Amino acid sequence: MSAARNRQWRLRRRPAGVVQPSDFELADGAVPTLQDGQILVRNVYLSIDPTQRLWAREEASYMPPIPLGEVMRGIAAGVVEQSRNARYPAGAAVSGLFGMQDYAVSNGEGVNLLPPGVPLQAALAVFGHIGITAYFGLLEVGQAKAGETLVVSGAAGAVGSLVGQIGKIVDCRVIGIAGSDEKCRWITQELGFDRAINYRTGDVGAALDHLCPDGIDVYFDNVGGEILDAALARLRLHARVALCGAISQYNAAGKPQGPSNLMYLVYRRARMEGFLTADFRHRAAEAMKPLAQWLKEGRIKYRVDIVHGLENAIAAMQRMYEGGNIGKLLVQVSEEPA
Amino acid sequence: MSAARNRQWRLRRRPAGVVQPSDFELADGAVPTLQDGQILVRNVYLSIDPTQRLWAREEASYMPPIPLGEVMRGIAAGVVEQSRNARYPAGAAVSGLFGMQDYAVSNGEGVNLLPPGVPLQAALAVFGHIGITAYFGLLEVGQAKAGETLVVSGAAGAVGSLVGQIGKIVDCRVIGIAGSDEKCRWITQELGFDRAINYRTGDVGAALDHLCPDGIDVYFDNVGGEILDAALARLRLHARVALCGAISQYNAAGKPQGPSNLMYLVYRRARMEGFLTADFRHRAAEAMKPLAQWLKEGRIKYRVDIVHGLENAIAAMQRMYEGGNIGKLLVQVSEEPA
Repeated sequence: MSAARNRQWRLRRRPAGVVQPSDFELADGAVPTLQDGQILVRNVYLSIDPTQRLWAREEASYMPPIPLGEVMRGIAAGVVEQSRNARYPAGAAVSGLFGMQDYAVSNGEGVNLLPPGVPLQAALAVFGHIGITAYFGLLEVGQAKAGETLVVSGAAGAVGSLVGQIGKIVDCRVIGIAGSDEKCRWITQELGFDRAINYRTGDVGAALDHLCPDGIDVYFDNVGGEILDAALARLRLHARVALCGAISQYNAAGKPQGPSNLMYLVYRRARMEGFLTADFRHRAAEAMKPLAQWLKEGRIKYRVDIVHGLENAIAAMQRMYEGGNIGKLLVQVSEEPA
Repeated sequence: MSAARNRQWRLRRRPAGVVQPSDFELADGAVPTLQDGQILVRNVYLSIDPTQRLWAREEASYMPPIPLGEVMRGIAAGVVEQSRNARYPAGAAVSGLFGMQDYAVSNGEGVNLLPPGVPLQAALAVFGHIGITAYFGLLEVGQAKAGETLVVSGAAGAVGSLVGQIGKIVDCRVIGIAGSDEKCRWITQELGFDRAINYRTGDVGAALDHLCPDGIDVYFDNVGGEILDAALARLRLHARVALCGAISQYNAAGKPQGPSNLMYLVYRRARMEGFLTADFRHRAAEAMKPLAQWLKEGRIKYRVDIVHGLENAIAAMQRMYEGGNIGKLLVQVSEEPA
C-alpha cells in the first residue's frame, strides 16, 4: 500500500527563537495496522499556523507541550486511505490535528468530515479553524458593530485577512496592519480594507493617529508587542481588544514583552479578551453558513501560499515567523484526490 | 469670616518617581466672593487616592493633567460654609473634587450631598468613590459568583479591603495580597478574608499555587506589575481580571512594566477589563443601599488612617505609594462639624 513510508517531522529539541531545521528531524515512521475504530489519513495539505510555536515550547500553553521525539503537532487536511470507522469511510476528505507527516492514524476524535465540494485548500483557509477564529473572534469576542472602526494586525495573514473582510461586511471601517507594501496593496485593493499600515516602514502609532482620529473600537490582535501597545493607546471608550495571538512574541528569548499601555484599558474602560478556536467549534455551523455564502458572492476572498514537499515544511514555518507569507500558508505533501 | 485664609497644595512640577514635597508648594490662595449658584466648601477630610499620581503626570490619563501651578486635584468631604445654590444649603455635608486645600468654591457640578447621619469619614471610605469602585468592579466587571475564587491585590487598601468583604458576602473564596503581616492579619482576622499573602516576604506565584490550586476565577487588580503577572499565569478558564489600578507602576521611571503573561488571557480564554468609578456613578444607589445594610449588620468594616494637617498631605501621599497605610487614607484639614 501507499502508506509503506511515513516521513515525519519530529521535534528534536525546544526551539530558541525562530524554529530551525535542526530543531527537528525528518524521520521515517512506521504506519501501524489499523485497530477497530481507526482510520488512516493521507495528509495532502499541512496548515502552518503561528500557534505551533507555542506547542513546541517546554511551558504549557493551552495544550500540552509536544514531547521531544514526537511528531510535530499541526492541523492538516487529507483523505481517508483506509478505514475501520464507519463515520469516516475510505475516500472521505477530512481535517484534523494530523501532525506534520505523510500519514496519520486517528480514532476519529476531533476529526472533521469535509462536506463534498469544499476544496481541501478552502477547508484549511476558510472553512476550518481560520474561519471559526476570524468570525467568532471578531463578532463575538470583539463585538464589532456597524459604523465602528476596526483595526486588525497580521492583516495579510489567514485570520487577519478574513477578519478585515468580515469587518467590511458588517459595515466597519477597517484598517489593516501588515509587514510589506505588497501585503498592504492586497488587503486594500483586493480585499476591500479601507486603509493599510506597513509597520515595517512607518510609525504605527502616528499612522493610527492619522487614520483613526477618533480612536479604535475593535482591535483584533494577532501580533502582540509594540503594535498592541500602539493600539492600546488609541482605544476609544468601551473598546474591545480580541486577543487572538501574539506572533511577535512567540520566538522571543526570555519573557515576552507585555504592553506598557495596559492602563489604557482603565482610561478607556476597555476590555481585552483571549479566545481559541476550540471555544467556538461547537458553533462552527453558525460561521460556516455565512462564510460559504459570502465566498460564493465574492464578498470574501482567500489566498493560499503553497510550499511543496514535506521536506520544506520547517522552512515554510520559518518564513511565516519572518512574515514572508501572504494568506494561508500550506505545505502540500501529497496529491489532491482526483 | 473663617475662610480668609485658604492654604493650597499647588503642583509645582511633574513628579519623577514617588511624589516629593518639593514637587508641590503650599501657598496661600484667596477665597473669592461667591457668584450666584456657587458654594464655598470647607474641606474636612482629603481623600488620598493612588489615582492622583496619574493626574499629576504630563500625559493624559482619563482626566486632563493638572496644569502646573494649579491646586492638586483630589476628592474631599466637607461642609458648605456659604451658599448661593439652593441645592447645597449652608451647613450641608458634601463630597466632591474639592482639591488639596482648605476651601473650595464650586458651582455644584459633581458635588454629592451626603445623607444626614453618614459620618464624613464613612462617606469617603465606603459611601463614595471607594464603595462604587469596589461594588461594581467586583460584581459587574469581575462578575464574581458564589463558589468562585477571588484574589484581590492591594487588599488592605480602601478599595481592596471592601472588595474582599463583598466577595465573602457573595460566597467567594477570598485571597488577599498585601504588603505587611499586619495588613494580612487585619484582612483575615478582622475582615474575614480566607487567606492572605504578604508579597514582600514571600513568592506570590508559589503562594497562589498553594492557596488556589484550581486557579483564580476573579482577579481584582489594584497594583499591576509582577503581581498581575503572577495572577495571570494562574487564571482559570473564563476568568475575569477587573483592572482597577496599577499603583506599582504609577511612580515608575520610563515605561510601565506590561504583563509578560498576557497570553494567559488566550490560554485561559479570560477577560481583562478596565473601569472607573465614573462609569457607575449614575448607579451609585444600587451599591449604597446594600453597603449601608452590610455595614449596619457588621458584615463589612472599614478602617481609616488619618493624618492631621494639610501641611502633612504630601507626606501622607508618599506613605501611601510606599504601602504604609491600612484602610482609607485621609488627611484631616479642619474640624468635623458639631
